[in-house]
Amino acid sequence: MEIMKKQYLWALALCGLGHAVSAQDVARYVDPFIGTGAVAQSLSGNNYPGATVPFGMVQLSPDTREAPDWGQASGYDYNDKTIFGFSHTRLSGTGASDFIDILMLPMNENRKESRFTHEKEDAVPGYYRVLLQDDSINAELTATGRVGVHRYTYYNKEKASKVFLDLDHSANKGSWGRRVINAQIRQVGPSAIEGYRIITGWGKLRKIYFYAEFSQPIVASEMMNDNRTHRDIAVVNGTNLKAVFDFGRQDVVECKLAISPVSIENARLNLRTEADGKSFDAIKSQAYEAWNKELGKMQVESGEHEKEIFYTALYHTMIQPNVMSDANGEYMAADYSVRRLPVGQVHYSTFSLWDTFRAAHPLYTMLEPERSTDFVNSMIRQYDYYGYLPVWQLWGQDNYCMIGNHAVPVVADAILKGLPGIDVDKAYEAVKMSLTTPHLNSPFEIWDQYGYMPEDLQTQSVSITLEQSFDDWCAAQLAKHLNKAKDYEFFMKRSAYYRNLHHPETKFFQPKNSKGEWILPFDPYKYGANGGYPFTEGNGWQYYWYVPQNIPDLIGLTGGEDAFCKRLDEFFTSDQTSGEKNDNASGFVGLYAHGNEPSHHVAYLYAMAGQPAKTQQLVDHIKRTLYNTSSSGYAGNDDCGEMSAWYVFSALGFYPVNPASGEYVIGSPTVDHAEIMLPGGKKFAIVVKRKGGVGAVYVKSIRLNGRKLDGYVLKHADIMKGGTLEFELTAKPKGKILDLR
Amino acid sequence: MEIMKKQYLWALALCGLGHAVSAQDVARYVDPFIGTGAVAQSLSGNNYPGATVPFGMVQLSPDTREAPDWGQASGYDYNDKTIFGFSHTRLSGTGASDFIDILMLPMNENRKESRFTHEKEDAVPGYYRVLLQDDSINAELTATGRVGVHRYTYYNKEKASKVFLDLDHSANKGSWGRRVINAQIRQVGPSAIEGYRIITGWGKLRKIYFYAEFSQPIVASEMMNDNRTHRDIAVVNGTNLKAVFDFGRQDVVECKLAISPVSIENARLNLRTEADGKSFDAIKSQAYEAWNKELGKMQVESGEHEKEIFYTALYHTMIQPNVMSDANGEYMAADYSVRRLPVGQVHYSTFSLWDTFRAAHPLYTMLEPERSTDFVNSMIRQYDYYGYLPVWQLWGQDNYCMIGNHAVPVVADAILKGLPGIDVDKAYEAVKMSLTTPHLNSPFEIWDQYGYMPEDLQTQSVSITLEQSFDDWCAAQLAKHLNKAKDYEFFMKRSAYYRNLHHPETKFFQPKNSKGEWILPFDPYKYGANGGYPFTEGNGWQYYWYVPQNIPDLIGLTGGEDAFCKRLDEFFTSDQTSGEKNDNASGFVGLYAHGNEPSHHVAYLYAMAGQPAKTQQLVDHIKRTLYNTSSSGYAGNDDCGEMSAWYVFSALGFYPVNPASGEYVIGSPTVDHAEIMLPGGKKFAIVVKRKGGVGAVYVKSIRLNGRKLDGYVLKHADIMKGGTLEFELTAKPKGKILDLR
Repeated sequence: MEIMKKQYLWALALCGLGHAVSAQDVARYVDPFIGTGAVAQSLSGNNYPGATVPFGMVQLSPDTREAPDWGQASGYDYNDKTIFGFSHTRLSGTGASDFIDILMLPMNENRKESRFTHEKEDAVPGYYRVLLQDDSINAELTATGRVGVHRYTYYNKEKASKVFLDLDHSANKGSWGRRVINAQIRQVGPSAIEGYRIITGWGKLRKIYFYAEFSQPIVASEMMNDNRTHRDIAVVNGTNLKAVFDFGRQDVVECKLAISPVSIENARLNLRTEADGKSFDAIKSQAYEAWNKELGKMQVESGEHEKEIFYTALYHTMIQPNVMSDANGEYMAADYSVRRLPVGQVHYSTFSLWDTFRAAHPLYTMLEPERSTDFVNSMIRQYDYYGYLPVWQLWGQDNYCMIGNHAVPVVADAILKGLPGIDVDKAYEAVKMSLTTPHLNSPFEIWDQYGYMPEDLQTQSVSITLEQSFDDWCAAQLAKHLNKAKDYEFFMKRSAYYRNLHHPETKFFQPKNSKGEWILPFDPYKYGANGGYPFTEGNGWQYYWYVPQNIPDLIGLTGGEDAFCKRLDEFFTSDQTSGEKNDNASGFVGLYAHGNEPSHHVAYLYAMAGQPAKTQQLVDHIKRTLYNTSSSGYAGNDDCGEMSAWYVFSALGFYPVNPASGEYVIGSPTVDHAEIMLPGGKKFAIVVKRKGGVGAVYVKSIRLNGRKLDGYVLKHADIMKGGTLEFELTAKPKGKILDLR
Repeated sequence: MEIMKKQYLWALALCGLGHAVSAQDVARYVDPFIGTGAVAQSLSGNNYPGATVPFGMVQLSPDTREAPDWGQASGYDYNDKTIFGFSHTRLSGTGASDFIDILMLPMNENRKESRFTHEKEDAVPGYYRVLLQDDSINAELTATGRVGVHRYTYYNKEKASKVFLDLDHSANKGSWGRRVINAQIRQVGPSAIEGYRIITGWGKLRKIYFYAEFSQPIVASEMMNDNRTHRDIAVVNGTNLKAVFDFGRQDVVECKLAISPVSIENARLNLRTEADGKSFDAIKSQAYEAWNKELGKMQVESGEHEKEIFYTALYHTMIQPNVMSDANGEYMAADYSVRRLPVGQVHYSTFSLWDTFRAAHPLYTMLEPERSTDFVNSMIRQYDYYGYLPVWQLWGQDNYCMIGNHAVPVVADAILKGLPGIDVDKAYEAVKMSLTTPHLNSPFEIWDQYGYMPEDLQTQSVSITLEQSFDDWCAAQLAKHLNKAKDYEFFMKRSAYYRNLHHPETKFFQPKNSKGEWILPFDPYKYGANGGYPFTEGNGWQYYWYVPQNIPDLIGLTGGEDAFCKRLDEFFTSDQTSGEKNDNASGFVGLYAHGNEPSHHVAYLYAMAGQPAKTQQLVDHIKRTLYNTSSSGYAGNDDCGEMSAWYVFSALGFYPVNPASGEYVIGSPTVDHAEIMLPGGKKFAIVVKRKGGVGAVYVKSIRLNGRKLDGYVLKHADIMKGGTLEFELTAKPKGKILDLR
């Protein structure tokens, strides 16, 4: 996008202002507008362009929808022409919407929205600005971890400078039984306000307290409670609250608004701790530098276009999980009580685990090992108060979205990779209890009785059987690591339960009922959504490949490597499409749907079955055709950075097919050169020698620290030691490739 | 009721067991079944017969309704034949239902209810027992402040002894948008369980945590989440949770279940603090003694029938307000954050102020001065976090039920009566802010602009105008007390706003619109409910009398004492009834409706207008005909003890017509002799000399400390000094009386 150049100049200007910037300014490659709006028939990434810092609690961004929902879950759609205001929290890339708390809109006349154009809109990591055309106001946003910072420049000198605050604005109230339970707005000083709202929705009980300071005194105010407007009052309580603060004629009004999930006092403390005495520009610069520090952990040489995709993807992986504890360590536990962390710890939430266990969490173990420990400990805190690890957690509480228990691979992977700071015995207890205490979509008594999920007793049965087998395998590895032989056997037995749904003739994973009978007829092209069908957001073809813990066995079940590859060929080239596609299915390569996660590892399977050239061909194809720098830069929802994490790994040249194995399968790198900055000052370099131009995507040789690599497996431990991985790429595949139209 | 005798014997037996009991056992006069069920066309008092201690957090009682609502708000109806179980919280006497948390039912076979009969059901203060016929189980209940204690005796020796736990059971989910937000049941030891439920309803956000210990180990369990049942699992989370705990064959299973509004840890602490190591019988005895101590503050001689009504009424006044802080002083503040009290303080809630400001709170200032201070400080805590004093508060939060700001008379009365321990400046600030910060049904900008509530801008306008004028008068008295002359003038001016709705010709308080025009036609017989009409749960006739702050002015507006009394005569004798009676209107004497609060002071007005004999006749009539010892012993909802407080005062012979004036108007006593035990060991005696048998209800003379009392006013200060009030009663009225058919 064009704005990148402007921002690059601006970023350079920042350096001139004397702010310390990283040796290499990689944040300038991030375009926060990528993924923010579908074009043609694509899906939106459901990303947002606003201001946040890495893993921050605040995501301050424009809402172009009055009531964001599935299609515009982050609140923003690049195709929209109107901004309703800037709310302080949101999810990045999800299919369902929630958060969207505490909206502010600067204005002259009382209004609820303003037109805008992309010509007068910019964003870089940690900073967003837009010209609100109706009143001619420049709105700039930046953030610290728990504080949203606004700078509104009013160009109309004839009219009062006002700020509209809306505590009713939220994700669509028609979804998830969402409703505001109670809210408050209170003026507590000439230029200070505070309040909260308690809301139920996708997050069952979210309390959001805020404290805000304006740079100018409030000279008049209106507070609205439902349909009644009160002038110049101190406080208003209710379920549908709005306010207008009038600052008289001002050129600029700034606002620092801190949030807390615990109390107004904590919101105030968060503001004092993070933003007191700092100018808008200083905070903006600090936010940018925080991004540069995180993004700079990957130093990549590549084409400018590819760098923009790469660093924006990396940026999107670091927007969540979100800090969910206050500056004093208090947080709302999974049992809705307030608790305090040991000093130095941070509580995180926003765990979209069905998505992020695949690639995002493995990426965090490499780039963010300390934070990965915090993530795991945060998940274990749910176990403490909830009895099992999270399934899909937001604002500190489980919403059970999707299937499986994919905190287990995350916890197992962290421990098996040796991340310090985890109480391993307790973590194992949490894993074991999570896989033996039945809960929604995880009826383990049925699992243990039948050796599969019978569709008549548990819908989404085939998908759950496949994914749960993997989670059990992860638990088994952890049991082995801890010398718990009996538990290892128990979980290993379960980890093969996928076999019980493998149909020996059709060679599909197919649903059975509780009598052990195949449920017929079976249509491998027919999609399920999230219940009522044996498959979850996919079909029999897409789920066929989900045995990451034992691909050799899957190859065997399919009839050997040739049969397996032939079947993969059909998968990637079939032009058969079902009339009942799931909304989440998009980004097709044949039957492969890159727009949703069940397909994500499949392109790498050829490399595990003797036909690596097809893996190389496909990952190149997917990177080139299903990622771009437009607002529709993703093939589907980014899903809290998972779609991005696939790109980051695949651009480096490898991918965690089994995300808890400590191994990566090698594909084909996009980068020309990359350095991964590792803990302890170590570096892992990826060096690519390319012969044959753009089409040189096929691996001729791979060397690790100068030695030829046998096969296509790279060990995580080898990366973490530091070293060099050298690729020699040519335009000539070793072996057959596919005819991809 | 017959059970009284049994319990009397039981109470005597207790003495024999060596428990210290009060000098006089007055608790034996309490019949907890009074007010628990309507007969014929009466209203139920909506009381309940179960176990509680004075002002306790726990109210453990049978629920005879699966989803209690308006008609059986306390969960129990004496007319029912089935018990669903025993839940731990409820409201006493309200018209709307809420609480009804954490239901338990003992059983052999899995079942959801059991038949019972009143022949096998008893109750005394702090103790309830019933035979559950379907399984032949004797269920006994007692309580400490924060712990419900169950003793289940299973007579069937062939079957397993089980306990059913239901976290879905609640007041009717069809009312107030009620729904369970999340809940948990967890087994945490061989005989210990814990959990919580978060629910929204009349109380917008109630968190109820529990911790329970059984006297026997659980040998098997089932936990139900919606329609799925799990055997022998550790924890279940969801919105519709139930469990069955199987103790094998046991003669007796006891359970102590502690609750907390803050956390499971606090529930556990509450159990440890209040119930550890104490037997069921010891706790039962302790509860009974707690009641004897409180009730014994009134030592009354009277007929047995009258004593039963009197002490049951006194008992009902002391069921709430409810302790709402934990043993460690933590509580949920009005902003839904957790806070901790200064050591020694207690936080209370359940303030049904539209009802209880009239007589219950004045009664507390006499009998419970320390608790009255806690009540006032608890209300001021709402001001701290909400910006104004409560309107109707339950579980620590306002539900804005009804109209007016009647915390103001309560706070003003407490301060003007000199109760220690209140920060008077802060209290005044709270009062002033509560009467100047507009909120639901209190649009003060309109009040100040128009000098009345215009019905087109604020419905229930006449009732609000009358009641708000009184609240403003109370604020004025407090301002005067604090030498705030300007505020005094401001509030005194407002306190006369009722005059602006007094129609000079019809001599009714009538609605006006915002143009200052009378809204016609006006029908003084037509009832309003809670919105959409100028009157609240009453009509123009019933609201005519609501100028307690200036009865002389009301007399003047009506045309002098004769015209005033003539109008009262019509009020008490008219046989005209409207076809549109409000549900809350019952207990009629002419147009007077004793079943709802707006009428409550009116019988006493004759004494203020020169015709005291009619007051004496009427209060005697009301006491005799509208109170009795049946399940339908009240003429309407007891409304958190307000109907009871009317009786207590009226039986003693006086009533607080203006509840913040420090004065009582004298009626006609029922008691033969009474001693009120006052702080500091003082006593105030009421001595009644009656000549002329049952009909001797007319005052011949009144002497205070030996001196003849002029007029019919008794000062609160004179009571609190200690002394004697002597009545000489005859059957002959001084002056005319009414023809009451």
